[in-house]
Amino acid sequence: MSELDKIGTYQFVAEPFHVDFTGHLTIGVLGNHLLNVAGFHAHDRGFGIDHLNEENYTWVLSRLAIEMTDLPYQYEPFSIQTWVENVYRLFTDRNFAVLNKEGKPVAYARSVWAMINMETRKPIDLMAMHNGDITGYICDKDCPIEKPSRIKVTSKEPVAEMPVRYSDMDINGHVNSIRYMEHILDLFPIDTFKEKRLHRFEMAYVAETMAGDSLAYYVDKVDEGHFDVEVKKNAAETVCRSKVIFKRN
Amino acid sequence: MSELDKIGTYQFVAEPFHVDFTGHLTIGVLGNHLLNVAGFHAHDRGFGIDHLNEENYTWVLSRLAIEMTDLPYQYEPFSIQTWVENVYRLFTDRNFAVLNKEGKPVAYARSVWAMINMETRKPIDLMAMHNGDITGYICDKDCPIEKPSRIKVTSKEPVAEMPVRYSDMDINGHVNSIRYMEHILDLFPIDTFKEKRLHRFEMAYVAETMAGDSLAYYVDKVDEGHFDVEVKKNAAETVCRSKVIFKRN
Repeated sequence: MSELDKIGTYQFVAEPFHVDFTGHLTIGVLGNHLLNVAGFHAHDRGFGIDHLNEENYTWVLSRLAIEMTDLPYQYEPFSIQTWVENVYRLFTDRNFAVLNKEGKPVAYARSVWAMINMETRKPIDLMAMHNGDITGYICDKDCPIEKPSRIKVTSKEPVAEMPVRYSDMDINGHVNSIRYMEHILDLFPIDTFKEKRLHRFEMAYVAETMAGDSLAYYVDKVDEGHFDVEVKKNAAETVCRSKVIFKRN
Repeated sequence: MSELDKIGTYQFVAEPFHVDFTGHLTIGVLGNHLLNVAGFHAHDRGFGIDHLNEENYTWVLSRLAIEMTDLPYQYEPFSIQTWVENVYRLFTDRNFAVLNKEGKPVAYARSVWAMINMETRKPIDLMAMHNGDITGYICDKDCPIEKPSRIKVTSKEPVAEMPVRYSDMDINGHVNSIRYMEHILDLFPIDTFKEKRLHRFEMAYVAETMAGDSLAYYVDKVDEGHFDVEVKKNAAETVCRSKVIFKRN
């Protein structure tokens, strides 16, 4: 298989309700597209959720890091490429490039996934799955952004607390991965998004949250425009961590 | 032009992050699709936003009413049909049908739109626009749900108050029409969505909200499973009203 065949490319348009007040695609919508194309790419190669479901397995997103310059503007067509960078025993690295309508990269993303057995919630050995077929899709296309980092938050005072609401939940009854991204960005004053632009956004997913849980948000200001965020459920257990880096326009 | 040519039909799939914990498409996503197909249909017939922009005009959604039985399940393909039911001097009625993968209607919607001059914010006479060309698209396809009703809320005590946040806003810096729908559904306990299913949802848009505004939500319980909701900005001016009717499963 050529390197080109290993890369999946998917077409999109920046819909009107999918852009923010600057007219550019929101990170939540971009995140949704990234997770969708990961699903399409895996599906087309026989290791998608639908095949895995028969074996009671599912993919779980562990980490996501996105770096962007100039996201697509309202009504602009764009495409997303995705490929597998590495496969380890319990994790796989999947990368993404977002290309604008001229085909120029305007964002890159890195993600780390595990596969689990839905009944036991235990991780699956990817090398043992279908004789390690997945390693045949490893592709050495460049992804010129840093890997997801370790995030450590020291703040003990939450800046916001909110219960899990109906619109937060996915089909499994858990808060969906995209909603955390939106809730975290909503911690920042709107003026932040006027003066600066989002440069890098990282998510590390640690535990699931469901109906009845309350989410508390803790924020460390690491540097000018650089924030580390931790979300805990019921003011105790870490649910996810995030790194948010803004740059001056 | 035949009646069939007047109806636009658009294909979708229920994406994983677009379904709620029951596995069915959310009303927010359905609302987004309805507004998008309204845009596609108008665009294809020469009275879309892009043509209007040249004249500094834009479409403004005034009312939306959706009734549904069994919305598409995760990964299911479905289609949305839209057509113009009526054109008055200052408003036009546009209807929708949502068809499941077997082509059976699972939801209908009615919407009312005005066209305004973006500079003066004044309404445009639709009969005078392009010699009233739009009336040529009027179609008598059946839409078997009630028209949007008058909603009157008497409660004086808000059940929730929240500031306008980054993720709420559209390209014009206003809270977007879809976010109101999500915030209104989030007023209800998650158990409501377990015991009942949403049967009818209405929105009447009255005024714009922007960064710096705070939104207060007032709810009247009209009957078992039937709620009227009013959203006011800064605890004073009405922004929108909504009717939410649940039915027992």
